[in-house]
Amino acid sequence: MAIKVYSSLSRVKEVFEPIHDGWVGIYVCGPTVYDWTHLGHARTYIAFDAIVRWLEYRGYRVFYVQNITDVGHLTEAGEDKVVGRAIREKVEPMALVEFYMREYFRDMDVLGVRRPDVSPRATGHIIDMIEVIKRLIEKGYAYEVDGNVFFDVSRFPDYGKLSRVKLEDMIAGARIDVHPGKRDPRDFALWKKAGEDYPLKWVSPWGYGFPGWHIECTVMAMRYLGEQIDIHGGALDLIFPHHENEIAQAEAFTGRKPFVKYWMHTGLLTVNGEKMAKSLGNYVRIRDVLDKFSPAAVRLFILSTHYRSQLDYREEKLVEAEANVKRLMNSLTRLEEAKVERASDKPASSEERRILEELYRLSSVFDESMDDDFNTAEAVSFLFEICRAVNKLVDLPSINRAILSEAETIFKGKLRVLGLPDTPSRREVSSKLVEALIDIIIDVRNEARKRKDYATADEIRRRLASIGVKLEDLPGKTIWRIEEAI
Amino acid sequence: MAIKVYSSLSRVKEVFEPIHDGWVGIYVCGPTVYDWTHLGHARTYIAFDAIVRWLEYRGYRVFYVQNITDVGHLTEAGEDKVVGRAIREKVEPMALVEFYMREYFRDMDVLGVRRPDVSPRATGHIIDMIEVIKRLIEKGYAYEVDGNVFFDVSRFPDYGKLSRVKLEDMIAGARIDVHPGKRDPRDFALWKKAGEDYPLKWVSPWGYGFPGWHIECTVMAMRYLGEQIDIHGGALDLIFPHHENEIAQAEAFTGRKPFVKYWMHTGLLTVNGEKMAKSLGNYVRIRDVLDKFSPAAVRLFILSTHYRSQLDYREEKLVEAEANVKRLMNSLTRLEEAKVERASDKPASSEERRILEELYRLSSVFDESMDDDFNTAEAVSFLFEICRAVNKLVDLPSINRAILSEAETIFKGKLRVLGLPDTPSRREVSSKLVEALIDIIIDVRNEARKRKDYATADEIRRRLASIGVKLEDLPGKTIWRIEEAI
Repeated sequence: MAIKVYSSLSRVKEVFEPIHDGWVGIYVCGPTVYDWTHLGHARTYIAFDAIVRWLEYRGYRVFYVQNITDVGHLTEAGEDKVVGRAIREKVEPMALVEFYMREYFRDMDVLGVRRPDVSPRATGHIIDMIEVIKRLIEKGYAYEVDGNVFFDVSRFPDYGKLSRVKLEDMIAGARIDVHPGKRDPRDFALWKKAGEDYPLKWVSPWGYGFPGWHIECTVMAMRYLGEQIDIHGGALDLIFPHHENEIAQAEAFTGRKPFVKYWMHTGLLTVNGEKMAKSLGNYVRIRDVLDKFSPAAVRLFILSTHYRSQLDYREEKLVEAEANVKRLMNSLTRLEEAKVERASDKPASSEERRILEELYRLSSVFDESMDDDFNTAEAVSFLFEICRAVNKLVDLPSINRAILSEAETIFKGKLRVLGLPDTPSRREVSSKLVEALIDIIIDVRNEARKRKDYATADEIRRRLASIGVKLEDLPGKTIWRIEEAI
Repeated sequence: MAIKVYSSLSRVKEVFEPIHDGWVGIYVCGPTVYDWTHLGHARTYIAFDAIVRWLEYRGYRVFYVQNITDVGHLTEAGEDKVVGRAIREKVEPMALVEFYMREYFRDMDVLGVRRPDVSPRATGHIIDMIEVIKRLIEKGYAYEVDGNVFFDVSRFPDYGKLSRVKLEDMIAGARIDVHPGKRDPRDFALWKKAGEDYPLKWVSPWGYGFPGWHIECTVMAMRYLGEQIDIHGGALDLIFPHHENEIAQAEAFTGRKPFVKYWMHTGLLTVNGEKMAKSLGNYVRIRDVLDKFSPAAVRLFILSTHYRSQLDYREEKLVEAEANVKRLMNSLTRLEEAKVERASDKPASSEERRILEELYRLSSVFDESMDDDFNTAEAVSFLFEICRAVNKLVDLPSINRAILSEAETIFKGKLRVLGLPDTPSRREVSSKLVEALIDIIIDVRNEARKRKDYATADEIRRRLASIGVKLEDLPGKTIWRIEEAI
């Protein structure tokens, strides 16, 4: 049952062996909280949620750290995302952060993404960052220029080992930060100088300023997980420069390598075949998706593609996922009913034994898929085969109690490990349903009154009253109200 | 419509005039997140929630800051509450903080306490604290002793102006921190030295350590609200030493007074007549109260006592509050029904006009009570008079539409400003109710089948199917399932 993990560094699947026996430390780059949570976030955090659940299912104790970036993440134009937005909206930057952070967690909670063990905020670790930067300067890996501190890439020969980006490509690329004091165009900022009126700055040995986004993650990862960590994850587009720079900073600081044993990256998200980007106007907020589709459908849609593959969002796919969720939930409902109505203590029939064997086989291939670099796409397809087998079982007029219970354990276990609901959603009854049912009863009662069957009419009124529904016969119509809902 | 506020400093009610026209900055001491949220928190934060809502109702723009204490709050034995608990439970202190912070906000959300605009964490502001402490030392208000920094109370002649505690009382009292290097027993720590193995510490000009609880609040309040703030609040037991020390620190640092224009404190909470304390074993968690009672009942119970008065928690009072919430909700339901069924365009009768006059009068005395130092106790009693007047109105066989609409505006407006639900809770239908209704329909249908009225029986089956409820007649019983819930 060895788990295999694709490493973005070695670019092959490796057998998963955490640094400390039985304990896994994982750091996933969290959101920059200056705007609504979008589908890209959902993709990455649902994928890692399933990964963490699977590691726990396999018996590991997992410590999951996912940061909140509330300062230092710059746009390509060099503007801090939080500060820029706060200035434009004329709000205190930390009030903006508070709002979007809250909404982020709300969305994740709704999507069944379990909270990380710690969600460190960059602004909560400025001193730690300053200390690491000071040490990098002492060790000759960084230098100060007029209140800014840069990492000296030429001093770190391993630079590029994750992204395999070459110096020439970098210089040709548009994303390189030009600063007059930089010794090498590849050098990147550890500390940025801030002007006097800048709203979010801290005092440091280099004057007022704020940390660079890359050093934030390195420092928070080491602060909670140690100098060498098992898994570091994030979206594919973070490989360069963010994670490349993280490696340089951490390994230069600690003198130990590797900083991260397994680098894991979620694939690109596209919307109707195009890259999702604000500039393209095809930004999809999770909030808007959840207005139309259930959280379970969103999870199922995302997990139906392997985490490393490109995922294309189209509304038709969500419609399909919603129907598939309904299939799963109907199965669960029928299973619950079968337990109450058709479970029997008679010996199992050969048909029942055959279904049970099939369930064992499916459970085992499900597990193998998950062990194989968390292949939820395959696992989901086996989940539906499990669902079909359960349906075959509960269709029987009488079902052996022990077999039914095994089927339930397998089915629900797989649902849970994918973070899908494992109880039928009957509890979510709508008031519309109640109203429709009462309308039917009132119509039946009025029919009885018409044929002068007052005994039935009164009995109906009495029964309704006993569950808190009070009828009032007005001229030409009957109205009702719930007095004391059960 | 001037608002009057009782100031804990002047000990009289003062006319409320914020420092900046139309804008109110308010800081309330938040929880130390090392354990479950208890009734004391609910009392304080529901009280300030009502205060903030009232200020907004009166047209002020309110900026509400409530901190999260995640380091530096010591027990009387001198142990950091977070660190002590984390060590005992063998968890990372910030993971402990993350857990209880999350549960705190969950409880507050359920209780309808609106989130503050910013919830700054002490660990997120260590640099700001160090800077303020450095300046206090420079100005001669503080001194270092062996890695600790103390505030020199003798240098601040106003010390004691809030609590009116005298030096002699302090020396006699048990709560004074003894430290060999302290010049005066009243001096208190701004920075505490931490040993090498201590799990939560930062580097500072005085070596590794962590900030004192008092300096945390002063610094966070000034960081978000400026050097002088309108309202600073908290529970009564924070007056000394916490708020007394906050004044000393802030006014010494800024050279301006007063630090706070209106100090507001919520009264003591007792449980069955006794002080609530962990040592007495009568600690009441909000979570446990909410297991038995609705959030609205908890709010109503708390707001039925003036925020400054002592509040005694007894379960009977919650039972009573629950019944009172039901009265309010029944009124709302009847009002909704009246709008649909009995609103008319006929001219208002004299009875209706009399009720409307009464509603205007009650609305106005409600507002006066709230203006008078946020007297929610009186306001709640007027709310119930409003409820009675609404009941009188909706009892009429036909109601003038305009008057009904006025009544609704007044009633719902008052509910909202107290943070009570303003829509009837019919939406919260339970699956039990659905099941009971379907059982009644099935029984009625089976009666019809018994008397061979198959037309009725089939019609019932058809109608149920049309709303997604599918019947299956088995020998001796009829089972049902919701196939496609509406």
